[in-house]
Amino acid sequence: MIIGRVVGETVSTKKHPSHEGLKLLIVAPADLQGEPLESVTPLVAVDPMDAGLGDQVLLAMDGWTAMTAMDLPGSPIDAAVIGVIDHIDVSRDLVP
Amino acid sequence: MIIGRVVGETVSTKKHPSHEGLKLLIVAPADLQGEPLESVTPLVAVDPMDAGLGDQVLLAMDGWTAMTAMDLPGSPIDAAVIGVIDHIDVSRDLVP
Amino acid sequence: MIIGRVVGETVSTKKHPSHEGLKLLIVAPADLQGEPLESVTPLVAVDPMDAGLGDQVLLAMDGWTAMTAMDLPGSPIDAAVIGVIDHIDVSRDLVP
Amino acid sequence: MIIGRVVGETVSTKKHPSHEGLKLLIVAPADLQGEPLESVTPLVAVDPMDAGLGDQVLLAMDGWTAMTAMDLPGSPIDAAVIGVIDHIDVSRDLVP
Amino acid sequence: MIIGRVVGETVSTKKHPSHEGLKLLIVAPADLQGEPLESVTPLVAVDPMDAGLGDQVLLAMDGWTAMTAMDLPGSPIDAAVIGVIDHIDVSRDLVP
Repeated sequence: MIIGRVVGETVSTKKHPSHEGLKLLIVAPADLQGEPLESVTPLVAVDPMDAGLGDQVLLAMDGWTAMTAMDLPGSPIDAAVIGVIDHIDVSRDLVP
Repeated sequence: MIIGRVVGETVSTKKHPSHEGLKLLIVAPADLQGEPLESVTPLVAVDPMDAGLGDQVLLAMDGWTAMTAMDLPGSPIDAAVIGVIDHIDVSRDLVP
Repeated sequence: MIIGRVVGETVSTKKHPSHEGLKLLIVAPADLQGEPLESVTPLVAVDPMDAGLGDQVLLAMDGWTAMTAMDLPGSPIDAAVIGVIDHIDVSRDLVP
Repeated sequence: MIIGRVVGETVSTKKHPSHEGLKLLIVAPADLQGEPLESVTPLVAVDPMDAGLGDQVLLAMDGWTAMTAMDLPGSPIDAAVIGVIDHIDVSRDLVP
Repeated sequence: MIIGRVVGETVSTKKHPSHEGLKLLIVAPADLQGEPLESVTPLVAVDPMDAGLGDQVLLAMDGWTAMTAMDLPGSPIDAAVIGVIDHIDVSRDLVP
């Protein structure tokens, strides 16, 4: 999983029928301080965790994993929010 | 999923039999304004959404996810358009 | 899928038994003009399409997708040529 | 798999029910000396190996592989620690 | 698949029970001359081919593909050596 930050959402009228009613968040891959990485393009993920704008989240980025997160094996999904992060504990002398 | 923009299509005579009749779009990974990213090479995706040239689309990039989008589990596909994006709402103070 | 160009082939004596007789092509990821990208290392893919040296091809790069392309679910394959490209139509004003 | 170094952990209250009680480590992809790579963002992985802070670990980064490592096929996981590395033997004349 | 070069091995005491007795090689992604790429970090792969130090190998990098290569569907593996390369034939005028 990677750490991401919710920065927006996307809306589609034309979509796979199984996506009806699903919230699709724009999540920016983030560093250990939760700041979006400038060099990486934001992703779009389904959100069964009801994360809010600005939240730091745990993002799964594998098809089967994301379908499992939603309990929707017949729905085309390849990224899902699987947790809202409360805090991150990092040993500062171990990271560059 | 990622955000992409439809920039063309590709045609093959020699192909997997299950691809007969499928539309194969060239989709450029795009930024949050829908502009193709210069540093990233365009991808090829099947399109069950009937997206048009220039459309902003939601692109799934996982084999099983793409097969599920097409409802073609026996067809070799690893990328599919799963939505045509109407609009993207981004909180500008959250992105770099 | 990505667009690639066939630039060679690779030969192994020691290999998985299921690979006996399979052709393994070296495919360079290519731009929309079919020119190999300098910054990306060539990949190795099985080829059920009988592509020739120099051909522009459609490359699937997912394990299950590639196994499906070969109809060999018990054979370790993670990339396969799934089409020989006749032509690519791109709207020049849409790409950078 | 890649070589990683455990640099911290992350805590979530809102999470998938199957993640209750799982330890989620922050693992920095590392070079052959076990030093975190500056250019690569740390990942989050489940840890069935009870690795400690600073440990060099073997990291699997595929959904089905990670679920298999945990023996939790119904839990959304896409990265798992699958070994704690004792030592790495590298032939110095073979690496740049 | 990608072309790699065996540059070492890694040893773990704490590991998934199914990894008992498996050889875990360090494989450096390589160019078409078999030289390790400086810009890419070495990977760790299981080796059912009994490759030797310095060998050029064919590397599969997908979970299900690697499990299939080992015939170990219940073992967490996401990369496997699936061939030892004898020679690579590349058309020099086709590569940059």
